Amino acid sequence: MKKLFLPLLLLLFAVSAFAQTLNSPNGSFAFAFKLSEKGAPVYSLTYKSRPVVRESKMGFELKDQPALLEGFQIIDTKTAESDETWNPVWGEQKTIRSHYRELAVALEQTVVVDAAGKVHPNTEIFSSASNADARKITRRLTIRFRLFDDGLGFRYEFPVQDGLKYFTVTDEKTEFNLTGDHKTFWIPGDYDSQEYAYNTTKLSEIDATKGKYVAEIAVKSVFAPNAVQTPLMMKTADGLYINIHEAALADYPAMYMMVDRQTFGLTTHLAPNAVGSAAFLQTPAKTPWRTVIVSDKAADILASRLILNLNEPSKIRDPGWIRPQKMVGVWWEMHVGKASWNYSDVNNVKIDETDWSALKPNGRHGANTANVKRYIDFAAKNGIDGVLVEGWNIGWEDWFGNWKENVFDFLTPYPDFDVKELKNYAAAKGVKLIMHHETSGSASNYERRLDAAFRFMKENGYDAVKTGYVGRIIPRGETHDGQWMVNHYTHVVEEAAKYKIMVDSHEPVRPTGLTRTYPNWLASEAARGNEFNAWSQGNPPEHETILPFTRLMGGPMDYTPGIFEIKMSYYDPKKTEQVHTTLAKQLALYVTMFSPLQMAADLPENYEKRMDAFQFIRDVAVDWDETRILEAEPGDYLTIARKAKNKDAWFIGAITDENAREASAALDFLPAGKTYVATVYGDAPDADWQKNPMAYKIQSHLVDNKTALKLALAPGGGAAVSLRPAAPDDLRNLKRY
Amino acid sequence: MKKLFLPLLLLLFAVSAFAQTLNSPNGSFAFAFKLSEKGAPVYSLTYKSRPVVRESKMGFELKDQPALLEGFQIIDTKTAESDETWNPVWGEQKTIRSHYRELAVALEQTVVVDAAGKVHPNTEIFSSASNADARKITRRLTIRFRLFDDGLGFRYEFPVQDGLKYFTVTDEKTEFNLTGDHKTFWIPGDYDSQEYAYNTTKLSEIDATKGKYVAEIAVKSVFAPNAVQTPLMMKTADGLYINIHEAALADYPAMYMMVDRQTFGLTTHLAPNAVGSAAFLQTPAKTPWRTVIVSDKAADILASRLILNLNEPSKIRDPGWIRPQKMVGVWWEMHVGKASWNYSDVNNVKIDETDWSALKPNGRHGANTANVKRYIDFAAKNGIDGVLVEGWNIGWEDWFGNWKENVFDFLTPYPDFDVKELKNYAAAKGVKLIMHHETSGSASNYERRLDAAFRFMKENGYDAVKTGYVGRIIPRGETHDGQWMVNHYTHVVEEAAKYKIMVDSHEPVRPTGLTRTYPNWLASEAARGNEFNAWSQGNPPEHETILPFTRLMGGPMDYTPGIFEIKMSYYDPKKTEQVHTTLAKQLALYVTMFSPLQMAADLPENYEKRMDAFQFIRDVAVDWDETRILEAEPGDYLTIARKAKNKDAWFIGAITDENAREASAALDFLPAGKTYVATVYGDAPDADWQKNPMAYKIQSHLVDNKTALKLALAPGGGAAVSLRPAAPDDLRNLKRY
Repeated sequence: MKKLFLPLLLLLFAVSAFAQTLNSPNGSFAFAFKLSEKGAPVYSLTYKSRPVVRESKMGFELKDQPALLEGFQIIDTKTAESDETWNPVWGEQKTIRSHYRELAVALEQTVVVDAAGKVHPNTEIFSSASNADARKITRRLTIRFRLFDDGLGFRYEFPVQDGLKYFTVTDEKTEFNLTGDHKTFWIPGDYDSQEYAYNTTKLSEIDATKGKYVAEIAVKSVFAPNAVQTPLMMKTADGLYINIHEAALADYPAMYMMVDRQTFGLTTHLAPNAVGSAAFLQTPAKTPWRTVIVSDKAADILASRLILNLNEPSKIRDPGWIRPQKMVGVWWEMHVGKASWNYSDVNNVKIDETDWSALKPNGRHGANTANVKRYIDFAAKNGIDGVLVEGWNIGWEDWFGNWKENVFDFLTPYPDFDVKELKNYAAAKGVKLIMHHETSGSASNYERRLDAAFRFMKENGYDAVKTGYVGRIIPRGETHDGQWMVNHYTHVVEEAAKYKIMVDSHEPVRPTGLTRTYPNWLASEAARGNEFNAWSQGNPPEHETILPFTRLMGGPMDYTPGIFEIKMSYYDPKKTEQVHTTLAKQLALYVTMFSPLQMAADLPENYEKRMDAFQFIRDVAVDWDETRILEAEPGDYLTIARKAKNKDAWFIGAITDENAREASAALDFLPAGKTYVATVYGDAPDADWQKNPMAYKIQSHLVDNKTALKLALAPGGGAAVSLRPAAPDDLRNLKRY
Repeated sequence: MKKLFLPLLLLLFAVSAFAQTLNSPNGSFAFAFKLSEKGAPVYSLTYKSRPVVRESKMGFELKDQPALLEGFQIIDTKTAESDETWNPVWGEQKTIRSHYRELAVALEQTVVVDAAGKVHPNTEIFSSASNADARKITRRLTIRFRLFDDGLGFRYEFPVQDGLKYFTVTDEKTEFNLTGDHKTFWIPGDYDSQEYAYNTTKLSEIDATKGKYVAEIAVKSVFAPNAVQTPLMMKTADGLYINIHEAALADYPAMYMMVDRQTFGLTTHLAPNAVGSAAFLQTPAKTPWRTVIVSDKAADILASRLILNLNEPSKIRDPGWIRPQKMVGVWWEMHVGKASWNYSDVNNVKIDETDWSALKPNGRHGANTANVKRYIDFAAKNGIDGVLVEGWNIGWEDWFGNWKENVFDFLTPYPDFDVKELKNYAAAKGVKLIMHHETSGSASNYERRLDAAFRFMKENGYDAVKTGYVGRIIPRGETHDGQWMVNHYTHVVEEAAKYKIMVDSHEPVRPTGLTRTYPNWLASEAARGNEFNAWSQGNPPEHETILPFTRLMGGPMDYTPGIFEIKMSYYDPKKTEQVHTTLAKQLALYVTMFSPLQMAADLPENYEKRMDAFQFIRDVAVDWDETRILEAEPGDYLTIARKAKNKDAWFIGAITDENAREASAALDFLPAGKTYVATVYGDAPDADWQKNPMAYKIQSHLVDNKTALKLALAPGGGAAVSLRPAAPDDLRNLKRY
């Protein structure tokens, strides 16, 4: 039989000697794939003839088996082109185009299985008598590349085969060999947290252990000085913007980049599991897509929909119950120290044994019936859809830091929180209560109780839940970013969909575009949110100009903007913490920081003192027909215009870092010949995030599509603009810009 | 302030210098407790003035803290006596007496907390400036001893205290220093399996790695040559029987015994968790009870209710729905190779992706509608309460050995199993279907789906479930016997109770009397059951004479007796496997092997050929008013008589090992002056477990309370006897014994 295959083998060698190439639809990208002399898969990528990824190897290390790294032959290649448009349930734009050319390379590697069933590389010599029964088997792997006009996505696929059924990946070794010592916006590689401020250094200067504010993070697993997280944003010396991340992370661990600080090569590393490997796979299996988005304009990075395009279409067939929305919540008052999540100040409780009604209340419990009604009233009066209530359920007295499994039951309210009364009160006011499920990282406890918790929600009028994972993960040995937890977050979202419940995940793995597939997954945190400004060194003024290029590449973030009382000394003269923006910049974030779930995070009483500014939060949309990135530079500034979904209204957000700046917003996206009212919520002339953060100025003008707005941004400042068609009164009363 | 406490401290030292002693109510046991010179807790135990446990130390090693092993002072001792009776929901006797004397010793240990919060032993010297803020704290521990007339139980209690809130036990170091090189009935210490045949050696000869048939067990974690499991049964050279086990195992790992083969000292070792420690505890916390049952008569060991007495009363307030019962099942036909659990012979399926209706059936699937109806018919005709069906649900094609998480969904039947039709059919026949939930060890998957699975059961008429844990545990890194899984089994039983569902757990941690607290937990396997006879080296004839002294000390076992076709060559001439008993001994097991859930494990067609013998299975009770251990010697023989619950009927089981023997059963337990019919289902004169296992003889006689039956047991044989009041016809037709 062997002889019959010889011609075929020769042909295979012949195929592998030549590189396979691919150009993106408009030709801006060129991609090449080949096998190295040792049979290792190698790819490279250029953008407008400039090398972006030098020849880079690909593959896996496996448990108890030879690696899938070299010794491959190409057995088939297929190319294809696809050009289609699709409409997300919600998003930054109504219609998204997905246009790519595809190359699928089917690889085969021969290994030897000895008499005992152990697998060895083909190169090992079998001479002993005990190996008389050794036999060769092939293992197959397909690498699928999709080249768009905004970048490259590729994934590994393991087809059903005899040589690989159940197998364990110990690590993935995909390289991204870069061309120079790029400027990089990075946070430490960490199996448990992404809540870091960004560092801006050259690749050669990365040191995760010395990252900004690393010591502040309580639950962290920084594992190597040269490990960083994705989305990883870079800029080359000659002005190319490069973003590396992943799409459609499912049943697989999150990926980090190990940076070679001498050669500027990146190599993937996977979050490990409790038993020291990384991914348990069963064929057919596929990895997430690895993504490289590139442009010579920073704005193009933000306009890219490549990550969404690489995700699967919505699994929810009847998404009519999914509502983009705004919320207020019993939440910020805990962060500023006015109220507590816990009902009592004891520090040792058991949800099944403690007599809660016998505990001495601390008098500061935020989630009490009267206080929640106050939020419901405010929401009802101001067109806010939902009211989040944190701290409503028993268990908060010692919820954090004890690696405790049965920390919450998600069912039992504190004695001062009347579930039925609030259900009726909210319903009468036309407001939805939003559930809060903090797990303290005890995912096993949450899964065990999830069904009952969701039934409780539906019985009591809740149709959205904010989940939280603050703490070390249980099952112990697992981490926030490992395969088990990746599956957990998705499991929660899938179960929620069965109950028509929307989800906002805090402290999950960082998103990878799965909101396309599960549009009830409205938002995630998975980054350093606004709350850090209340009680830590906070988020430097540049923070919000970096997040859209990093964390938000994967999906919407529940950043909780809208803080009007900027300085914490307002609550306690001894406090020096503050929000590191002006008030006007807080408004701009509703546009620059996309999310279909936006919180008006400050206290009702703080808004009631400044209802003129709050008007923007009332008006701003959370779902969009169109998005225009008007100007952008990561770490420096960002101006975005968006058209409200199904509505003749536009909103603009412009933000800057610690430097004052004049933002430009040409309104050429407006329909020709039609006059609009532009209301600018801007920094007052003397505003400054440190010295005078709450000074804002609101002005309205008549504008049209020939207008170019100039928006003066204070240090740490911003501007928010609403645009609506001018009414006859406006034409009489307002001046042209 | 310090001076004021000095007299008290002196007093404490004085207290600790003297041993605390305690005698059991009838004086047969004497117990002593003291602190060693180093302040280590030390206890000892004698029985009828013969030392049983020499001075033995007690305590714990903790994670990141000094051990709780020495440096203790006694701060309080309390003694008490309790004598009460209680009635189990079901059991071996209607009323159980619990009579003990108690000593509770409150211990205190001083440690030092440095400025960083790290805890050090009190003996460490703090001189550096950084330790200026070091402070002493006390840690408290109570050891509670209960001395019954059948043995000792003790546990550790950690009261609420500042020095211990959340803490981690890395191992428990409770010693049982024995007095000699006792004969021991042991199986290897193993974190994942108890499915071993017993070894009978001296303590000095224990070698777990060379245990009987160890190589047969697929999923095992034998961790040390000198580690054995409990219940550990021993016999001293001078005829004392000693049984060491634990009671009320909850929120704590299972305990093993590490045997010092030179000194005959045993020391506890706890099943580890995924992160290399053993138990995560929060005060108030308590360990399970450690039990030492002792007698100079082997029968007393089996009559002891000490372990049940140390468990908490039933948590189920309305136990009326809990029914002791008999079942048949689509089960043994798979073990003998006539049928398969799986529907198709493919070997790579995914419960969420495979198109089950498109799979090619293998034609041997046991759980098909027609076959299940056959079992329902048989059960209805013969007064059998339930029909177990294994293999009804998708996922069996590759369920074992792949460490696969989503292996079963517990909801989706195979295409040939009609849930609704069988629900109606069983209901019309007055038979209950019994659900089967094999988890393959994937407990995380089961917990995730448990609520839906139980709802499905109730919707479809099932009120009992047999669970299974064949496979490596998921969460990966946990084991069958660790704290997480201990909590899992109890969680399943508690959730089941909410749905009024009874549970029969296979492959769980070995029982510790929790059926008292959760009487819906009818039975467990947790040992080498009858099934091993179908496809392995099987269970040696002595096996069933040892199990009551070991595994069954913790609670009922679903051993699945009643196999009539003894030799597997009946199914396939090539097979040499067989059940290692006579047919008559299979009947005797219904009495000797207590369980409120008893299976008639063989195939209906095998019973239909021998309905005279099957009559005993029809008649025998599964719940009892009284139990008399008539004669017993572990490893050799056992004769038990039991009175049926609320019924004037007695049943006797007598079994022997590989040696022929004459069993004696004096019927002095019968009421005086009343004549009964004794029907003896015994071995035929030429019966022999190997040569002629299926030869039996049934004879009825008139007997009374002066009769002493002599039962001739064949090698590997047994006899079953039913006793019912004689009717007038009987008096005419039958002869006196």
